[in-house]
Amino acid sequence: MISKNQIKFIRSLQLKKHRDAHNCFVVEGEKIVDEIIKSDFSIYQIFATKGWLLSNPNIVAEQTHKISEKELSRISQHSTPNKVLAVVEKAERELKISTITKGLTLVLDEIKDPGNLGTIIRVCDWFGVERIICSKNSVDIYNSKVVQATMGSLVRVMLYYDDIEDVINQLPSDFPIYGAYMDGKNITDIVIEKDAILIIGNESFGISDKVGLFIKERIAIPNQKEGAESLNVAIATSILLHEFRR
Amino acid sequence: MISKNQIKFIRSLQLKKHRDAHNCFVVEGEKIVDEIIKSDFSIYQIFATKGWLLSNPNIVAEQTHKISEKELSRISQHSTPNKVLAVVEKAERELKISTITKGLTLVLDEIKDPGNLGTIIRVCDWFGVERIICSKNSVDIYNSKVVQATMGSLVRVMLYYDDIEDVINQLPSDFPIYGAYMDGKNITDIVIEKDAILIIGNESFGISDKVGLFIKERIAIPNQKEGAESLNVAIATSILLHEFRR
Repeated sequence: MISKNQIKFIRSLQLKKHRDAHNCFVVEGEKIVDEIIKSDFSIYQIFATKGWLLSNPNIVAEQTHKISEKELSRISQHSTPNKVLAVVEKAERELKISTITKGLTLVLDEIKDPGNLGTIIRVCDWFGVERIICSKNSVDIYNSKVVQATMGSLVRVMLYYDDIEDVINQLPSDFPIYGAYMDGKNITDIVIEKDAILIIGNESFGISDKVGLFIKERIAIPNQKEGAESLNVAIATSILLHEFRR
Repeated sequence: MISKNQIKFIRSLQLKKHRDAHNCFVVEGEKIVDEIIKSDFSIYQIFATKGWLLSNPNIVAEQTHKISEKELSRISQHSTPNKVLAVVEKAERELKISTITKGLTLVLDEIKDPGNLGTIIRVCDWFGVERIICSKNSVDIYNSKVVQATMGSLVRVMLYYDDIEDVINQLPSDFPIYGAYMDGKNITDIVIEKDAILIIGNESFGISDKVGLFIKERIAIPNQKEGAESLNVAIATSILLHEFRR
């Protein structure tokens, strides 16, 4: 059974201000809930069908509710709800500046589309990117469309929201910082540093002027055919990360 | 003004059987209609706002209709309709087998998701891929979600639907055919032939067994972190095409 107040609470979490106020977010479907269970995230509430509960007898959550398919469809954001929905506590992630000088840090300067952020998180999972830093005006990682597009990768990728300029100002002045531009140098012609920052800009406007000031090397993906449409930001990020890991 | 029959006709084109019967499809929005106008596609009908018609005085279409924003929203598939909708004749594309031995041919074996096909077409436009061949059970290029995801690239990319086995059977037996597999050889370790076929499989099942028989080299994208989610098919295709053009 599910109460009206519970339905109201879960629906309220569609908005960032309520996710922030309650410090939790919603995940849906067997695959992603399974990833959450295996991770260090804490589960506050599980709403699941009898079948799911029977196949997952050892779930630890503060509250577990058996509900019908029909009830599930009332709280689901999906057109075909899939057995289980969980309300999960947001992870406390505190960025330690000293860690940035080891490995690859992807910096996202105002990515706005939830599908793009989710896809980028999934690709960072594949390539084992050490951390992602999003500008504070980027889309929220706990937006349900982002969560869905990550396909569960969000449990394995370290993502922080911070002020990009503040972060970079605390790094050694010679630390390699690459930025993706349409008119940058061909990425395949460059010797890429392993410990580095790669900055990707907004879908429409690219990297903001104030962040652009910090970039040491402007890079681009070659082989654009004349007159061709530009690459989507998630695709461009994927190709660049492939080159960083090549 | 727009009549009830016109509304009914445009809405009917959401289904492939009607697009096939009438040999036309719908494009929406200033950017894509502009690409269509500059291409060799023939426009059957234009439904546009007064403002759009005033800024595009030299449009050649069999029928041009001035309509209101409100009327546009009745025929649009978009949540925020954008000034113009066109009904366009499908292009007659006949695959000449002899052309395949020159350049890169991307073969898609049962891609089902419209967003994936649209994104792949856009990436092929960027990299100047010579042609795409889709298996006949793939999603239709004239599906409105595919058209939208191409961002106009569909006018510049040659795409054919054909029987993959039939096509390959007509090629020289030593022609290079690469296939993307999770357990293939690292693409960065291979000397890639410029004149070649690259085969990408279905989102869930990969390359079908019958098509797999023709593959000479199984390739993969390296650097998957242990336990990571696999790459989306459009992302994987983009990285592989980047390597083919590198």
